Amino acid sequence: MKKFVNDPLNFVPEMLKGIALANPDTLRYVPEYNLIMRADAPSHDKVSIIQGSGSGHEPAHVMVVGRGMLDGACPGDVFAAPPMEYVLETAKLLASDKGVLLLVNNYTGDKMAFEMAAELAEAEGMDVRTLFINDDVAVKDSTWTVGRRGVAGNFFVMKAVGAAAEAGASLDELVRIGEKVNSVTRTMGIALTPCTPPAKGSPLFELADDEMEVGVGIHGEPGRRRATLVSADEIIDELLGAVVPDLPYSSGDSVALMINGLGGTPISELYLLYGLAHEKLAAQGITVGRSYVGEYCTSLDMAGASLTLVRLDDEITELLLAPAEIANRVF
Amino acid sequence: MKKFVNDPLNFVPEMLKGIALANPDTLRYVPEYNLIMRADAPSHDKVSIIQGSGSGHEPAHVMVVGRGMLDGACPGDVFAAPPMEYVLETAKLLASDKGVLLLVNNYTGDKMAFEMAAELAEAEGMDVRTLFINDDVAVKDSTWTVGRRGVAGNFFVMKAVGAAAEAGASLDELVRIGEKVNSVTRTMGIALTPCTPPAKGSPLFELADDEMEVGVGIHGEPGRRRATLVSADEIIDELLGAVVPDLPYSSGDSVALMINGLGGTPISELYLLYGLAHEKLAAQGITVGRSYVGEYCTSLDMAGASLTLVRLDDEITELLLAPAEIANRVF
Repeated sequence: MKKFVNDPLNFVPEMLKGIALANPDTLRYVPEYNLIMRADAPSHDKVSIIQGSGSGHEPAHVMVVGRGMLDGACPGDVFAAPPMEYVLETAKLLASDKGVLLLVNNYTGDKMAFEMAAELAEAEGMDVRTLFINDDVAVKDSTWTVGRRGVAGNFFVMKAVGAAAEAGASLDELVRIGEKVNSVTRTMGIALTPCTPPAKGSPLFELADDEMEVGVGIHGEPGRRRATLVSADEIIDELLGAVVPDLPYSSGDSVALMINGLGGTPISELYLLYGLAHEKLAAQGITVGRSYVGEYCTSLDMAGASLTLVRLDDEITELLLAPAEIANRVF
Repeated sequence: MKKFVNDPLNFVPEMLKGIALANPDTLRYVPEYNLIMRADAPSHDKVSIIQGSGSGHEPAHVMVVGRGMLDGACPGDVFAAPPMEYVLETAKLLASDKGVLLLVNNYTGDKMAFEMAAELAEAEGMDVRTLFINDDVAVKDSTWTVGRRGVAGNFFVMKAVGAAAEAGASLDELVRIGEKVNSVTRTMGIALTPCTPPAKGSPLFELADDEMEVGVGIHGEPGRRRATLVSADEIIDELLGAVVPDLPYSSGDSVALMINGLGGTPISELYLLYGLAHEKLAAQGITVGRSYVGEYCTSLDMAGASLTLVRLDDEITELLLAPAEIANRVF
């Protein structure tokens, strides 16, 4: 295993501590619950937004806490759902008079932890709603998930509800907005290499030198098929061929296009993919109204990328354009 | 080779085209000279700032073009200096009445191309100055460089002169500021894996499963020594042990601390390293006044990281804090 790590069992706490030390004025780390929260949260003028899942997907979600984004992130260990008690305590620490919204990618372990925590929080009198994101078109139902999985498209749901919450929207309104964004968002990814969880110390699966995994999940779960590695052009054709007809996105649509890196792929390759996807969409009459290139939801050190489309309307565009501030996005 | 690529010989142009397509309102791509420039440049109210080197170090420099940063970036092919003619034409396209500043990492090939281009531009009546960055403490003199190499610390020189240029500083003033920032900036890096240039198709060097390269250059050049991979704690001790005494940075100093990823290392590991470095500096009485964690100057897909310190004073802090806008840093 070639990683910067001390005791692999301390990987997540040491990372969280680093995030807090790098952002002493804006973020707070609560080690008891693996929690990263805004230093100025909760505010009773806005709904608190909390997102959680296993670690290993950074910057999601612990590095996107800040004004106009998350109020708190509650991660589990690498690729493991957070304990239900941690989610509950996080919700209590961030309880707002306007309510609490929990954002969860649709994976069975995460779903269970957050649903149970929400029930207990409600029993304690809190106003809590849970919103599940399921943007991955690759597979439906698996040993990991009932229904579709939530992957990089969670960024758009989070950004939209984060902006609306900052503007004072109610909990009901945020649920409406989040469900709407989720309903027009679709993603599929391709892995070129496996990833290595620090505590395991070896790759989660094997890929031959000439192979790729089409439709890979963000924990290295199998996708649609194992295939021979092809050119960037053919890979974008495959991804658009799965994503575009699924909603479907149609000629005349304006979309946000995200090329998300899975952790080990350099940004040069992501921009190369972006250019190809942008032009192929234009050839179908689909216009890119907003572009996102970089790492948003990763799988540790996996080389690979995912492509996400969001169908834009005026409401979604305005929410995506709203200002936001997050950890260390400094020039 | 596991990369997203079409014809490897088109890797750089296809990446540059992607950058331009993702930023249609703010950036312009001039294929004849591999040039990415601000769409609103040149302005005769400010000195134009151009940075160049081989490609493969993204986001440096083609992805940091924008207000308060670079006016243009002129990259060569992967790990190859840009042709002298391209640098000259870039300088001409960005010629401003206030002059042109060329920023160059100190590598022999880049130095030759930019010095010759500057001479020719001056012969054509342009006011051009060239500033060399040499922040890498690892090695002095090699087959690649006379003197020290320029690596991730180039970001701080660029950010400072970019901010000062936006505020209307003269070319002489920018040279003074750039030399000052360079003089208080020191870096050293560690590679855990080699990197693979697309056109070569195989790794530039070999590292055994339990080895790291201490003091690696940003093109995979050898550093101080090949060593057995150790814990993150010991790696930070090694990097601080080389960087801190070099200037030296001393108890009572306030510094900017950058943990820069070399391309294949996930940001989770970079924050883990950041936390360790921050605390070890504090134990020496050195305060981190500003933190930078992420990818600033990479080596393609190399797993590894570098640590940079900048001794802060009021002038440098103000320039680092000044607003800046670059490609796709959107939330």
